[in-house]
Amino acid sequence: MDLGVLRDQIDDIDKQIIRLFEERMDVAEQVARYKIGCGKPVYDPVRERSKIERAKDMATSSFNARGVETLFNQLMAISRVRQYELVAEAHQDNFGFEECNGDHVGAKVAFQGVEGAYGHQATLGYFGKDVECYHVKTFEDVMKEVHEGRADYGVLPVENSSTGIITDVYDLMHLYDNYIVGEYVVKVEHALLGLPGTEIDQIKTVYSHPQGLLQCSRFLDEKPEWEQVSLQNTAVSAQKVLVEQDRTQAAIASPAAAAIYSLSVLKEKISDNDNNSTRFIIIRHKKEYVKGADGISISFELANAHETGSLYHALGFIIYNSLNMTKIESRPIQGDKWRYRFFIDFDGNIGEAPVQDALRGMAQETINFKILGNYIQVE
Amino acid sequence: MDLGVLRDQIDDIDKQIIRLFEERMDVAEQVARYKIGCGKPVYDPVRERSKIERAKDMATSSFNARGVETLFNQLMAISRVRQYELVAEAHQDNFGFEECNGDHVGAKVAFQGVEGAYGHQATLGYFGKDVECYHVKTFEDVMKEVHEGRADYGVLPVENSSTGIITDVYDLMHLYDNYIVGEYVVKVEHALLGLPGTEIDQIKTVYSHPQGLLQCSRFLDEKPEWEQVSLQNTAVSAQKVLVEQDRTQAAIASPAAAAIYSLSVLKEKISDNDNNSTRFIIIRHKKEYVKGADGISISFELANAHETGSLYHALGFIIYNSLNMTKIESRPIQGDKWRYRFFIDFDGNIGEAPVQDALRGMAQETINFKILGNYIQVE
Repeated sequence: MDLGVLRDQIDDIDKQIIRLFEERMDVAEQVARYKIGCGKPVYDPVRERSKIERAKDMATSSFNARGVETLFNQLMAISRVRQYELVAEAHQDNFGFEECNGDHVGAKVAFQGVEGAYGHQATLGYFGKDVECYHVKTFEDVMKEVHEGRADYGVLPVENSSTGIITDVYDLMHLYDNYIVGEYVVKVEHALLGLPGTEIDQIKTVYSHPQGLLQCSRFLDEKPEWEQVSLQNTAVSAQKVLVEQDRTQAAIASPAAAAIYSLSVLKEKISDNDNNSTRFIIIRHKKEYVKGADGISISFELANAHETGSLYHALGFIIYNSLNMTKIESRPIQGDKWRYRFFIDFDGNIGEAPVQDALRGMAQETINFKILGNYIQVE
Repeated sequence: MDLGVLRDQIDDIDKQIIRLFEERMDVAEQVARYKIGCGKPVYDPVRERSKIERAKDMATSSFNARGVETLFNQLMAISRVRQYELVAEAHQDNFGFEECNGDHVGAKVAFQGVEGAYGHQATLGYFGKDVECYHVKTFEDVMKEVHEGRADYGVLPVENSSTGIITDVYDLMHLYDNYIVGEYVVKVEHALLGLPGTEIDQIKTVYSHPQGLLQCSRFLDEKPEWEQVSLQNTAVSAQKVLVEQDRTQAAIASPAAAAIYSLSVLKEKISDNDNNSTRFIIIRHKKEYVKGADGISISFELANAHETGSLYHALGFIIYNSLNMTKIESRPIQGDKWRYRFFIDFDGNIGEAPVQDALRGMAQETINFKILGNYIQVE
């Protein structure tokens, strides 16, 4: 048969499908108005599931049954988006998040590391030079300061553009009842710092944060005789070199740290990648978001990780609502071998109907679901 | 109007939609057979785009236009999966992978670390106690030994059940023309090792691989005064304690390393999680798989990471073929800020049609697609 004739047939079928789709949307809207009128919930997963099973049974091949399932999942998700739009006109549900003006005058901020560390730079960058801030030792300490109310905000690194996510912070975000209210990106320019007058040939030991060592691995691979010592952060490393006054020691840290700890830059720009940045999150012990917040972070686990398509199905709530997923990460669940927790970022504001629809769907169909925050994205 | 009446109307519309969907699949199959007959490619993104635009124009509201767009994207993706199935029937294509019997008698094997390290344990466990094996210093050295033919096989850790993936190995797997032919899981039982007669109170410095330090972080958090020094691997750390004969030093390594380096176990089972395992991959510079291989690893990037649903769309090829995805990871692409490369594992053998269909689809619709290997999974 001729290709043109086949394509005309497809065009004709598509026209009918579009007509039926629009009829279906009309009737679904009437159902929604009825439900809203008598206070019934829009989403009825049991009913949808049985509807899809009946639809699959009508298909004449196993391939088509699978196709029908996908198609009807989509159709019902589109209907639900429209229905939630109607519900949103009556009842707003922001999952306990409140819009705020983002004002942080007089706030106290905790960051990890010491003065001169990248976390300090992020704190000054986000809150301004005059902010009242203090440092703590570990990522978990930041979580605790904020959770227990000693700090209004905390600043934590979540991702480096070369080495990937900072896994500990992801794990902590799931554990603690704190929420992301902002983000800030710091350009990382690692340098090799030593006591003034030190020659690179004298060095035997180099100190840095494990991420600092990792991000300069190409430079360090050329110095296989150097001992690499991991410390709490890059600025502590610079401080140690200053305190110990030993010319066999060097630190990998920022040029800003050299100034603070009276060290010389022995070699600048030693990162593997000169386009290296670290993304920080700003956290609060409060579910709030500012007007214009355009990024949402969530985490969840799957009830049955080995069921075909269970992750795919969860992602469908984002996609069917025409939302743009920008990131997905998985982390092993402690004590539960080879099972994962997922972390997803997507564009949107929690006040919008499609976002609420996606969140509602995922909250219902995953386990340990958490909205980590809604904030203004950088870039 | 009555809810039951509305639901009957929806059922009636759905019946018609299913009938039209099946008709559309029939015609699309004829188009596919025609295309296969004259060697034309299945995927024609320009034609699909213009088709969707025309479909949207037929909708009578902007909401419905968005619904039509989503629906037709899905419809065409389903058609394409069927078309790739037909292509797979016409041309068997193992993507250059050859079935082999997995015989490795007389093989030379390279692993990272020294004797007594977990990599050594994995090598002996997979190949047997009599294997001819030797150690190299870094993960990349293993890649090079195998790639340049000095070793027939290499052994590399890819994931720990507590700390997650070993990111460097993922990055190297994408870079080097080597392939996974097997996997092996080693139970990790970290212990604190020291010179015989050492008391824990005497210790000032502890050596280990960064992963070893990370996996014992709860134990180490109680010893904030200890200096934590990162070395190449756990066994090198044990060796250092033996060589330096200094009772202020300890190593975190396996009890097996204690035996090899004449050290005492000062404290056993210090891992955060006593269900701690490391998964190793066995690599070759050859595209081969054994009969019964049931796990496939792939990597790819997205042409447009910020296009709604592009990852979802790529995953659809796995799901529509009823394959079970077991793992997804993303890694930043070096030098390309906030863009990611994805690593996915799913169940299957490269000789099977649904697997070939999924691979063909993803190969066409992602960029820098690589099949990392097909091997027998542990557990």
